[in-house]
Amino acid sequence: MGKEDFVKEITNIEEDFAQWYTDVVRKAELADYTDVKGFVAIRPYGYALWENIQKYADEKFKKVGVTNLYMPVLIPESLLNKEKDHVEGFAPEVAWVTYGGGEELEERLCIRPTSETIMSTMYSKWVSSWRDLPILGNQWCNVLRWEKETRPFLRSREFLWQEGHTVHETADEAKAMTLQMLDIYADVVENLLAIPVLKGEKTEKEKFAGAENTYTVETLMIDGRALQSGTSHYFGQNFAKPFDIKFQNREGKEEYAYQTSWGISTRLIGAVIMAHGDNRGLKLPPKVAPIQVVVVPIAQHKEGVLDKTKELANTLSKKFRVKFDDRDNYSPGFKFNDWEMRGVPLRVEMGPRDIENGEAVLVRRDTQSKETVKLENIESRVEELLEEIQRDMYNVCLERRKAKTTEAYTLEEIAKNLDENQGYVKAMWCGDRACEDKVKEVTGAPSRCIPFNQEHLSDKCAICGKKAEKMVVFGRQY
Amino acid sequence: MGKEDFVKEITNIEEDFAQWYTDVVRKAELADYTDVKGFVAIRPYGYALWENIQKYADEKFKKVGVTNLYMPVLIPESLLNKEKDHVEGFAPEVAWVTYGGGEELEERLCIRPTSETIMSTMYSKWVSSWRDLPILGNQWCNVLRWEKETRPFLRSREFLWQEGHTVHETADEAKAMTLQMLDIYADVVENLLAIPVLKGEKTEKEKFAGAENTYTVETLMIDGRALQSGTSHYFGQNFAKPFDIKFQNREGKEEYAYQTSWGISTRLIGAVIMAHGDNRGLKLPPKVAPIQVVVVPIAQHKEGVLDKTKELANTLSKKFRVKFDDRDNYSPGFKFNDWEMRGVPLRVEMGPRDIENGEAVLVRRDTQSKETVKLENIESRVEELLEEIQRDMYNVCLERRKAKTTEAYTLEEIAKNLDENQGYVKAMWCGDRACEDKVKEVTGAPSRCIPFNQEHLSDKCAICGKKAEKMVVFGRQY
Repeated sequence: MGKEDFVKEITNIEEDFAQWYTDVVRKAELADYTDVKGFVAIRPYGYALWENIQKYADEKFKKVGVTNLYMPVLIPESLLNKEKDHVEGFAPEVAWVTYGGGEELEERLCIRPTSETIMSTMYSKWVSSWRDLPILGNQWCNVLRWEKETRPFLRSREFLWQEGHTVHETADEAKAMTLQMLDIYADVVENLLAIPVLKGEKTEKEKFAGAENTYTVETLMIDGRALQSGTSHYFGQNFAKPFDIKFQNREGKEEYAYQTSWGISTRLIGAVIMAHGDNRGLKLPPKVAPIQVVVVPIAQHKEGVLDKTKELANTLSKKFRVKFDDRDNYSPGFKFNDWEMRGVPLRVEMGPRDIENGEAVLVRRDTQSKETVKLENIESRVEELLEEIQRDMYNVCLERRKAKTTEAYTLEEIAKNLDENQGYVKAMWCGDRACEDKVKEVTGAPSRCIPFNQEHLSDKCAICGKKAEKMVVFGRQY
Repeated sequence: MGKEDFVKEITNIEEDFAQWYTDVVRKAELADYTDVKGFVAIRPYGYALWENIQKYADEKFKKVGVTNLYMPVLIPESLLNKEKDHVEGFAPEVAWVTYGGGEELEERLCIRPTSETIMSTMYSKWVSSWRDLPILGNQWCNVLRWEKETRPFLRSREFLWQEGHTVHETADEAKAMTLQMLDIYADVVENLLAIPVLKGEKTEKEKFAGAENTYTVETLMIDGRALQSGTSHYFGQNFAKPFDIKFQNREGKEEYAYQTSWGISTRLIGAVIMAHGDNRGLKLPPKVAPIQVVVVPIAQHKEGVLDKTKELANTLSKKFRVKFDDRDNYSPGFKFNDWEMRGVPLRVEMGPRDIENGEAVLVRRDTQSKETVKLENIESRVEELLEEIQRDMYNVCLERRKAKTTEAYTLEEIAKNLDENQGYVKAMWCGDRACEDKVKEVTGAPSRCIPFNQEHLSDKCAICGKKAEKMVVFGRQY
């Protein structure tokens, strides 16, 4: 199979979204399957997306005083067992190390599914006075969860993430931290990845194992399914008590500390693919794109073309992330398709006539619109266009979300709306777990969150008809 | 135990270097022991050193075309077994995962001790033509080796590192890559960490399991023991054959590819501690120091002092990594000791009289020398001093290395020199493994390397007296 065929082979997005996703992941060389079931290899182009997410988020974290650290990847079973809800949530899906250095271990060790237990153990050693607080720790690392069904980036047995774990003097300070980090996640997803978020609190049923409150940023994919894109948890003293994180407060009294944790993961790469792509393949927002501009010479065998296009690429690369594609074994047409499939936001074409006229052609990946620009204006025009593309891609997602957000006043309407439209379905809710379970049972859709922006749709719970407590959003998910 | 006592408690460096090291690691809050034997937690101050090393090295890697990627942390036993020397080298010290998701696995999976096997498996899928080459992949990740004796940073069961794995069309290109990466390692260690390196090739006995050639940068610690600080391996086709990495070459013929791998790790943090520290604690080269300048107000309760010193700290922080220490529960004297213990290269003191005179006092961590500087000149003076400290720290190491490098012409001399002086002992060698084994047996010192800079000390092997092939360097190691 030649390369030319390879690029064409992306499944139609309307016909089979799941297969389209897999095709894009593999053909844009974002990730590949490995010999270890449920584990993927993240290829350089996919990893570059993760590096750009890391860089953006890490800077924001550091600005609010977060410091990075690193804890062991292995957690003894006895530590995992210390917090009851937590172990119930995670024990079924961990991987166990039972042999090390040729010998059977006395106690088996799990590969971290998340690090609350080991972090809390260390924090209890480091905290003795209110002067030692807050501790705002974070680690960028790999974690394992032995999932049954896996998909690259969205759900794999190993994934990369950051997990922040903080310790505070007061409940208020810890709660404020939880929400501050949620805001940073919203910033990452909206401003870097160009995907609007729905912010809210998870229900009791959907919250993190061991948390008092879980807050979430939810996103909506092209097919109308939701993706939980970042979560931030307030623990109160739930871990501080079993892990004995005590400190002397300002009044000289011993007290248990208040904690939070929060995380985003390589799942965000899945969000970018599924929120923006189309039948040509990947479509990347300029701010996160590993390559922002590709320069393709036209008729590159003609005298002067390679020199002039290379010169232009060099100039642009001082300000943007630029790829110069001078491959001599592919036609310009092939290259156009290839870079569109890889989602590069802007293409610059320049051939003999353009050179004569002192011009180049700019083509947007998102709208396919074309324009001719004088070389003396190209830098500023590229900058404008990249900003415009970023903004427009966000707005396209926002419009789609509006179109796919509906209201429902009965269980039947919730089901109908989801079946017709997927998307977010807003409904009033009495707050009872039974009603939430009912929706899941009938529609397969869990609650996404109780949005911060509450609306009063009616007085009655859409499921049981009793007095409504709040508005909740349902949606099928990845 | 109060904080004031805590700082004083570093063991004397001449009395017990090993205990001094442990004290510095723990008291400067670089790392701490955990509940999992042989595993440490890297604390924020220690991790910040690693981040600075990562940033410096990663930029250099990217400049030569290296791209980051990520491979699974778990490797099936059958993959590990594919290259004979490699499995013999690593199998005894791996950790095995035998259960996942509540079930016993059909095949056990080891946590990567290094990733040649999984990388080669994936590369074989990605390479079919010379046009796909070179592949210059690298990952920053955690690895596990079940060591018996462990010490924070120097030898722990889990450590962080980068492992580069490249694939090339020709042996020459792969060899050139191997040496290019060694040069980058020398750059990191010499220019960032201010430690001179000895560059050379490992002997057959000391080379990496599966490599044709292993090249190394070796460093010498204060106590005269050596530390292998970075290695770069040329594999020839040793992995390409069992892992079937074949490509169609420019002549249209199928050929096995040529590979390299290379790595540096958090062990470099150990190198920084042990190459530069003293009885006051850690001593950090400015370029890698998380805090380059600490500003300590004197008589901070007096009017205007906190304002003026804070203003100065803010000004300096535009150009340098600055800490403003306005803690009100410690004396300036305590703070001086505290930041010296933590190795901050430069201290700025400013009190009421200094403010009146428009001056501040600068104190170097490395030499303890003091000077008074006018505020209008302080930025440029700080810049000069940081450069000077970086250079001087390198030169101190270089002088010590000279003093601790000796020549030996007999086995007895090798042993005598090592016993008296530790350090590097240069000796002529016939090239026989038996002679190398003999030195190890008698002195406990392995060969460090066959230096690139060869000297002709005599015609005879220092051990057996036969014809000498080359000069080799011996030294006891961490």
